[in-house]
Parts: sequence; structure tokens; C-alpha cells
Amino acid sequence: MIKARLEGGVTSAKGFRAAGVSAGIRHGGRRDVALVAACRPCAAAAMFTTNAVAAAPVLFDRKTVASGRIQAILANSGIANACTGERGLADAARSAAETARLLGIPEGLVLVASTGVIGKPLPMDRLLAGARDAVAVLSPSPAAAEDAARAIMTTDTRPKRASATVRIGGKTVTVGGMCKGSGMIEPNMATMLGFLTTDADISPVALKKALKAAVSKSFNRVVVDGDESTNDSVFILASGAAGNPRIKSGTADFRLFAEALAAVCTALARQMAADGEGATKFVSVTVRNAATERDAERAARAIARSPLAKTSWFGKDPNWGRVLAAVGYSGAKVDDRKAEVFYGKTWAYRKGKTADAPQLAKLAAELEKPELDVTVDLHLGKASATIYTCDFSLDYVHINADYTT
Amino acid sequence: MIKARLEGGVTSAKGFRAAGVSAGIRHGGRRDVALVAACRPCAAAAMFTTNAVAAAPVLFDRKTVASGRIQAILANSGIANACTGERGLADAARSAAETARLLGIPEGLVLVASTGVIGKPLPMDRLLAGARDAVAVLSPSPAAAEDAARAIMTTDTRPKRASATVRIGGKTVTVGGMCKGSGMIEPNMATMLGFLTTDADISPVALKKALKAAVSKSFNRVVVDGDESTNDSVFILASGAAGNPRIKSGTADFRLFAEALAAVCTALARQMAADGEGATKFVSVTVRNAATERDAERAARAIARSPLAKTSWFGKDPNWGRVLAAVGYSGAKVDDRKAEVFYGKTWAYRKGKTADAPQLAKLAAELEKPELDVTVDLHLGKASATIYTCDFSLDYVHINADYTT
Repeated sequence: MIKARLEGGVTSAKGFRAAGVSAGIRHGGRRDVALVAACRPCAAAAMFTTNAVAAAPVLFDRKTVASGRIQAILANSGIANACTGERGLADAARSAAETARLLGIPEGLVLVASTGVIGKPLPMDRLLAGARDAVAVLSPSPAAAEDAARAIMTTDTRPKRASATVRIGGKTVTVGGMCKGSGMIEPNMATMLGFLTTDADISPVALKKALKAAVSKSFNRVVVDGDESTNDSVFILASGAAGNPRIKSGTADFRLFAEALAAVCTALARQMAADGEGATKFVSVTVRNAATERDAERAARAIARSPLAKTSWFGKDPNWGRVLAAVGYSGAKVDDRKAEVFYGKTWAYRKGKTADAPQLAKLAAELEKPELDVTVDLHLGKASATIYTCDFSLDYVHINADYTT
Repeated sequence: MIKARLEGGVTSAKGFRAAGVSAGIRHGGRRDVALVAACRPCAAAAMFTTNAVAAAPVLFDRKTVASGRIQAILANSGIANACTGERGLADAARSAAETARLLGIPEGLVLVASTGVIGKPLPMDRLLAGARDAVAVLSPSPAAAEDAARAIMTTDTRPKRASATVRIGGKTVTVGGMCKGSGMIEPNMATMLGFLTTDADISPVALKKALKAAVSKSFNRVVVDGDESTNDSVFILASGAAGNPRIKSGTADFRLFAEALAAVCTALARQMAADGEGATKFVSVTVRNAATERDAERAARAIARSPLAKTSWFGKDPNWGRVLAAVGYSGAKVDDRKAEVFYGKTWAYRKGKTADAPQLAKLAAELEKPELDVTVDLHLGKASATIYTCDFSLDYVHINADYTT
């Protein structure tokens, strides 16, 4: 199993430079414009929000990335450029075109991403000045990758980066990435943005396939509050600079690459869940031995979304009743006389039996930990699924209620 | 339109008596055993939780109510009798049989309902002593109806009652009821229980049909935290004591009766939402001019379930972006260039236009009110739906996190 490191980032792979600068879009001089640029046109793929209210950059990127060839991505935090109509679309296109001009590359090779307040237009002067500054300081250094990771943050409390390497055809292939969490923004949306880079030589078709598989088991398995934003996007660029024999779909090399990519995405997804707004605990919810894959996933998702379960984790309460009830309404097949609920490796409910005093003492110890595994064993089949989430704290309400427009 | 009164309750209709006593199941001498009994076997119908983890009383009642004839319902708070296996089923059956014996009526005419902690057995001695006490003080008085309404409360802060009258065939027909809210219990589940009585003479088939219609527009339109309990149940008993010509399905009389029943259920549902755990605001979410009924309902439900929207109401923030984003991920058809979002009668977002300073001042006034109407006009069709809910406050987290088993 390939394990991702929590260092590195979008410049770990050969052929990429990055920058993160302050353009005055956010308050207090925070970095708010990020740029990721490759030395040459890359094979590219992306996945976007399924929200029917999609932001202008999402609408722009969907069309632009269809070519499968992209060289740079400009991102800003502070303003989401969502619900901004024709003007928003024009602003997205203009920022991409201007960035291409600044980089001296053809139009059509630049994507854009935004995260922040909904319903306000991008401050184009500031954004384009930021793009200019970012181009001036582009660097392949780890520090530049960190600057970029900081520039996409909103209510995130820390930048999120990861990388992994794998040997393919005698060459070292690197995958790196950064993301911003599903935290809400002053004052608006919970947006997830992910930027992945690799120096693998890989066909756009295979790249898309690997991205889809990785995202489905990582970013799509994160639940913070169950809200899905208008701007959610994940991008991957492949420079080919590793010099490996080109990776094609369905080969052993492909499986290796896909595993490395999934490891990076999962490491990012876990950081995102752990940094959920107001979170005091990172929680992995696993439903195992479900009748079907679909049952396992929807049961785990229902638990991770349940405000009752999430507040019980915050309260360090081994409240298996709330966990099992969420499985019950998830639509998954469940028989409470067969099911078991565990916190860590300690059971709280076992086939009709409930924890007694010594068992409750063990459970209390599990619930003190900052990382909690909640497992439901349904004993109905062989399928399992894990969802990454966090608890629901007083601070979540503070963060999301206290801002007034 | 028939309007329900917020007084009266399960003894408003002729032929019913009620009681609510303290049996020591809950702490501090709170009333915890309720009994509703009719003077004769009634036409009866019920609806139960769709949670696959259904509590023992639900399993018992599903079979028992199939006869369509019931004379009494025994309910307790404090212990849910859920996830209690064979013992729980035996306890449910025994409490029903014992209540029948105490009332001197045939077995099979008594239903049971429980709400409270999951995974603990009913304290049968206390419950049966409570049933005995309740039988001894059964009364048709409004005070007895209030006692019963108090005995089913858990984290509810006030009893919930309503009644309505309607003229059918020259006779006054009364519908009354009580419910407990979708608040969680020390420490377990969010359970909704509804008890309705009427003196209408009506066939069990017509009664079931009217109940189903009323519940679908009332109790099923309440969202507190989106969790669905193992014990949710709504019951109706019809004594026939009004002496009206028997109501049959599909007649004008039926429509009149169904309207009265729906009015009572809606009044109860609104009280339930307003008394959601930690709620500071009652919120009606309406989505209108949707393409289809289903779209209207799922969009309204998504808004009402969104922790982001709910915390913004608590924070008095006219955050239409969160509202529109919830519509976006609900699966409903939406075009943000056509949509409008209103708080009260004041718009916050109108077809791409956002509120300016004077408009924001008006919105601030709307958000100060303890009752808030949030309306999304999709301008895509003619369907509309309303969901009753509440805000998401710091107290919600306190109530649901602070208990430790």
C-alpha cells in the first residue's frame, strides 16, 4: 500500500512552479491568489460540483478542460464568483486569458477557481494585479507550494498538502497536491478545492479515470456538514517530466499510478475532515459487513451527517443509539439484533447487548482521543465503506452564526 | 379554511378520557405515563417510522392496529424500548395486555408507545404501576388532556395540543390531539409521537386515508435536525360519538373531515418545529413556482436540513447564498438567474441582483422576528411546498453534547 507524506505539494512533481500572494481580496493582507503553472502543456482532468447552482469558474472550466490540455490554474479566495450572472462568466474568462498572456502561453490553457462570498463580483483589478505578482514569484520550491496552499484557505486553520512517489518503468513518478477544506467562508459557502500535479506521462483518458476513482474514495468521502458548494472542484495536471513510458488505462502501471494518486487524495481528504469548521475531533466512520457496497456507503454517510451523532462525539458520549438510528434511516439493510457498534476497538452495542460499567470506562478513554474510529458491523454481507468527518461543536455554530452581512 | 385552536387536546372530542401521571421512569417526579382511552372500541389508524431500526412498541403496534379497532393507547417517556430484542417485544405486549385488563376491555384493543433512551429495558414494575394510577384518574377534562400531553414530553419545553371542530351532517365533529416534539431525549433519540382523537363516525379505511394525507403535509413536513427516530408514531382513534352520518372516502364530508384533521396536525407540527431543541426561531421554508411538486418539496427540505442555513438564521444573517446553494444540491431544477430568495416579504436575492444597504436594513428587521418565513421563488413552474423547521443554535449543541452516559 502506497502511503502519502504530509509534506510536499503542488511543486513536488517535476515541471511545476507555484505561487501564493496577497492581492487584497481578503482582509488583513492574507494570501488570496494562488497560481500553479507547468513548464509545458499538461494532460489534464477535472471534476466539479454537482450543485445545480454552479459558480462561473466551474462553468468556464467545464468547457475549457474538455480539451484535456491545460498548463496553469489561477485560484482566488475571498470571492466565489457564484450567482454573478453574465458578468461572472466574463470575469472568469478574462482572468484566464490575462493569466495566459502574463505566462506567455496560448489562451485556452488556463483554468480558474474561486472560493468565498457568493453573489459579489470579483474585484478584477486586484485579482489581475495578484496574477501579475504571482507570475513574478513562481517557484518550484516547497515554500512556494505552501504559499499557494495558504492562498486558497478560507476558514481553514492550516494549509493542506500531501505527496507520494512510485516507481513506474524504472522512473520515479511523483504525485503532489493541495486542497482547501469544506469550511465555510466569510460569510458564505462550504467549498472544497483540490489541486493535484504529477510528472507522470499519462494519457488524458487514463488520467481522468484515475482521478475519478481517487476522488470517489477520498474527497467524496468527506462529510463536514453535508452541504455541497457551488464551487467544488478538483484538478489534476500531468507534466510527463518523469520520463516514464506513457501510462495507459488498464495496465499494471496504471494501477500503480492510480494507487499513488488515491493515497495523496485520501491524505488531503483526511486533513480536510480534521480541519472541519470548529472540529475538535477527526472521525472515521466505517460500516462493514454490509449487504452491499451501496448500503455500506449510505449507512456511513448517514452517520457522518447526523447532527445527533456528531454532537455526541463532541460531548464524548458513546451514544451508539444515535449511530444505529442513523443506519436505520439511511435506507441500508440492518438488523439491530445482529449489529455491533464500536468506538475504536471497543464495542458499545453488540447484538442486543449494551455496554456495562467497565466497558463504559473503556469507551470513555476512546472518546477522549482526538482521532476517533466509529465502526458499525452489520453482519449481513461483506461490503464496507469509510467516510471521513468531524464532530459538531459549539464553535461550528459560532463560526457560522456570528458573521452578519 | 379550517383553523385549529391551540387549546383542547385528546379529550376535546366526545367519548375520550385521558390521564398523565408520574411513575418514576423519568427523574424528578416528572409525568411519564400517559393514557388515552375511549368509551368504546374506535375505528383506528396509525403511521410509523420508516427507520429500519424500529422500536418494540412500533413492531407491536403495526400488528395490533391492523384490525382497525382500538380503544386505548398507553404511552411512556424516559425509555424508548428500542434495540431491546425479544425482551422489548414481550414488554410491549405485556404493557398492552395489562392496560386492557385494568380497563376491563379485551386484549388486542390497546396500543403502546415509548420515547426515551435506546437500549435499556422498560422498568415494567414502574410502568404498570403508572398504568394503574392513570386508569384511576382518567378524565374527559381539559386538565387531563394537558397532563397526558406533559407525560409524553422529553426535551420539549412545553406541551403541544390543538383541536378543531367542523359541522358534518348537522352534527359538530371535533378533532383533537397532542404530540411530542422531535427533540432528543436524555441521551438518545429524536422521537415524534402524535395522538389524535375524533368523535367522527368514519370507516377505518377513510380514517387511514385522511391520516395519511394530513401527516404528509404536517408531521412529515417538520425538520429539526433531519434525524428520524426508531419510535416515531402517529395514532388516531375515532369514537363515532358525534353521531354524524358515517363518513366514507371520496365524499364532501370526507374532505371536510380531512381538512379539520390536517389543520390539527399542522398546528401540532408547527408547535413541534418551534420547540425544536435549542430553537430560538420558528422558520417556515417555502419553495414556490418549482417545476414539480417533488422539486418543491426536496428543495424546501434541503434548505430546512442545511446546518449552514440554520446557523445563519440563528445568527440573523440574510445569507441567501446558503439557501440557494441548498436548493442547488437538492436535486431540484433551479436556474439562479431566474430565482429569488425572500426573508418575510423582503427579497435578498432577485434574479442575479443582490440586496443593497437599504434593502439589507429591511432584511435585518425580518431576521429579528421570532417567526421567520424563508421563501425561494424558482420561477420555473407552479408547484410549491412548505417545510416547518427552526434555527440551529448554540443550545442545540449544548443539549446534545453535554449529556454523558
